[in-house]
Amino acid sequence: MTLKIAVMPGDGIGPEITAQAVKVLEALKTDGLNIEFEHALIGGVAYREKGVPLPEETVALAKASDAVLFGAVGDFSLDTLPRHLRPEQAILGIRKALNLFANFRPAMVYDELADASTLRPEIVAGLDILIVRELTGDIYFGTPRGNRIAEDGPFKGEREAFDTMRYAETEIRRIAHVAFQAAQKRGGKLCSVDKANVLETTQFWRDIVTEVGKEYSDVELSHMYVDNCAMQLLKNPKQFDVIVTGNLFGDILSDEASMLTGSIGMLPSASLNESNFGLYEPIHGSAPDIAGKDLANPMATVLSAAMMLRYTFGLEDYANRIESAVKTVLATGPRTGDIWRDGKARTGTAGMGDAIVAALAKQ
Amino acid sequence: MTLKIAVMPGDGIGPEITAQAVKVLEALKTDGLNIEFEHALIGGVAYREKGVPLPEETVALAKASDAVLFGAVGDFSLDTLPRHLRPEQAILGIRKALNLFANFRPAMVYDELADASTLRPEIVAGLDILIVRELTGDIYFGTPRGNRIAEDGPFKGEREAFDTMRYAETEIRRIAHVAFQAAQKRGGKLCSVDKANVLETTQFWRDIVTEVGKEYSDVELSHMYVDNCAMQLLKNPKQFDVIVTGNLFGDILSDEASMLTGSIGMLPSASLNESNFGLYEPIHGSAPDIAGKDLANPMATVLSAAMMLRYTFGLEDYANRIESAVKTVLATGPRTGDIWRDGKARTGTAGMGDAIVAALAKQ
Ligand SMILES: CC(C)[C@H](C(=O)O)[C@@H](O)C(=O)O
Ligand SMILES: CC(C)[C@H](C(=O)O)[C@@H](O)C(=O)O
Repeated sequence: MTLKIAVMPGDGIGPEITAQAVKVLEALKTDGLNIEFEHALIGGVAYREKGVPLPEETVALAKASDAVLFGAVGDFSLDTLPRHLRPEQAILGIRKALNLFANFRPAMVYDELADASTLRPEIVAGLDILIVRELTGDIYFGTPRGNRIAEDGPFKGEREAFDTMRYAETEIRRIAHVAFQAAQKRGGKLCSVDKANVLETTQFWRDIVTEVGKEYSDVELSHMYVDNCAMQLLKNPKQFDVIVTGNLFGDILSDEASMLTGSIGMLPSASLNESNFGLYEPIHGSAPDIAGKDLANPMATVLSAAMMLRYTFGLEDYANRIESAVKTVLATGPRTGDIWRDGKARTGTAGMGDAIVAALAKQ
Repeated sequence: MTLKIAVMPGDGIGPEITAQAVKVLEALKTDGLNIEFEHALIGGVAYREKGVPLPEETVALAKASDAVLFGAVGDFSLDTLPRHLRPEQAILGIRKALNLFANFRPAMVYDELADASTLRPEIVAGLDILIVRELTGDIYFGTPRGNRIAEDGPFKGEREAFDTMRYAETEIRRIAHVAFQAAQKRGGKLCSVDKANVLETTQFWRDIVTEVGKEYSDVELSHMYVDNCAMQLLKNPKQFDVIVTGNLFGDILSDEASMLTGSIGMLPSASLNESNFGLYEPIHGSAPDIAGKDLANPMATVLSAAMMLRYTFGLEDYANRIESAVKTVLATGPRTGDIWRDGKARTGTAGMGDAIVAALAKQ
């Protein structure tokens, strides 16, 4: 069977970094990985060529593929477009269209990069947490939403804007199962994050997660308010194993957690549906300031490709090989500017891709 | 004129720490501060004695007073009560009842405590940022909210819960003015935090803040997405001067910012209405684990009393005196366990209050 990968480079540094991940996957062909790639437009580049950030052909290609390798979207010069035409709508749209409700965002500190964190080394050394973020519900997609004249309340008659946070039982149940199962495979601890002391939606979230937890007696479940979690991630991040939370809180907390590591150019992510079809992308953004300059670190995208092999295809061996090649390069190879330090050779985006391919060949 | 202060100790360590702040204010009487105190029940303790966390007499006393000195509310053993009876509802209720829409949460690092942060000293030394959080609107109070059977969408017919995020023009305008004016008195920089790429409410927020900004040409206004802000607070917190944001994002970001400092037992806050009437409270919570043991650090509450003198009464001199007494104690006096370190004498809650009073007397 040939694995069909839809490659969506997107904006900014997207094309350069996805090219390195494709290069690494291509290198595994000689070792028997049967894989082929088809490219599609998404984000600002799609808007410029097709008039919309998420063309129908792009969604169709994703649906006809076995997995999606995604770069990044975002282009400041398009920020003044009506919202539905902005590049970010493409990522929201494709998550929804493919029903990618389970977002895995690991935050881990590489020993080789422990000094890169702004936190004290003893607080973050060896950190390895996984944030499981619900990705297709919550206030991100809840209707009704919009602008109107207020019809009630103290500001009746005035202009107001509004959004709806909402979660249905199935949405909470399925992400809870995913998170409990991830915890089973890791440290056996799950912390569910909500704001149950204020929001009805998240009280319901807490109730359902607690109920689902009865099926996982081997996982230790705890609950934490989101404000406290934002603090605890700084105070003692190693207290966490797996965190599960809604779309909005997950957006904020996973960015905080990834910055803790000091390795944001290293962190991959996976967004999966019920049947392990997935979209794989680096956690960092499109970085327009360094786009096209061969400066970006492609490791997060290469590691996203490894996650793809593991989560969607169950190809644990190939995934391990890529991850260990990345570690070899970190330990002994050249580095891009974001993680460069004295004593290391300096290279660019393509050079880093080549170094990973070379490390694979030597395994 | 006698200043009438309503004292609401609340739960946990609340009574001990407010007692120290009252002691410090009392000590200023001999120097001409004309002040009197009346106590009221709030939170879990009010629920136990009166059956509700926010008794009518408590609101009435606040309205008849010139300012409120607040301890903390929260009592885990009451967390299973219906939401409207839980202690936290008291703080939400009193904010709304008194129209305390402007919450000032400074996050500053005391030189004497710079090592207490989990961040590297060079990242946080000298940090001094102010978060201005809108406190009476947003999804905290937005209606409709509740539980129901979904009437539309992919989960139609299922149980769901929902909340409404909403902001009206006046609500955004008034907090924006407060924040711009605060920035004028400080470093002249204001960063407005939103999620305008996803939420209609916060796109409206961004538009109105931008409009209000035209009246403050001496303040440099920027906008940042909340997920990025959660990262930037870790990456380079000193880039910020004043941050203004909505109620929900403000809850999360201000807790993150306060934990950056490592001085969370030191941080005061003020919640003000249009006419500078205010409720003053420490940023930390009710800490039931150490309640009644003379272990809590009362400095955040004492500094909240100083903020009260400054913001509500314009008594800058008395406020400065309290703040400088606190600094004297930090530099030369005994310390509570949370900020204790080798070479310092150790004391309890009351001892710390006495030390501040002694420092005042020596000024
Ligand atoms: C680009 C934006 C819409 C997106 C989100 O908020 O989900 C991004 O921040 C992310 O986390 O993938
Ligand atoms: C206790 C809780 C309702 C409250 C809030 O969310 O506002 C607290 O976290 C705070 O920040 O004062």
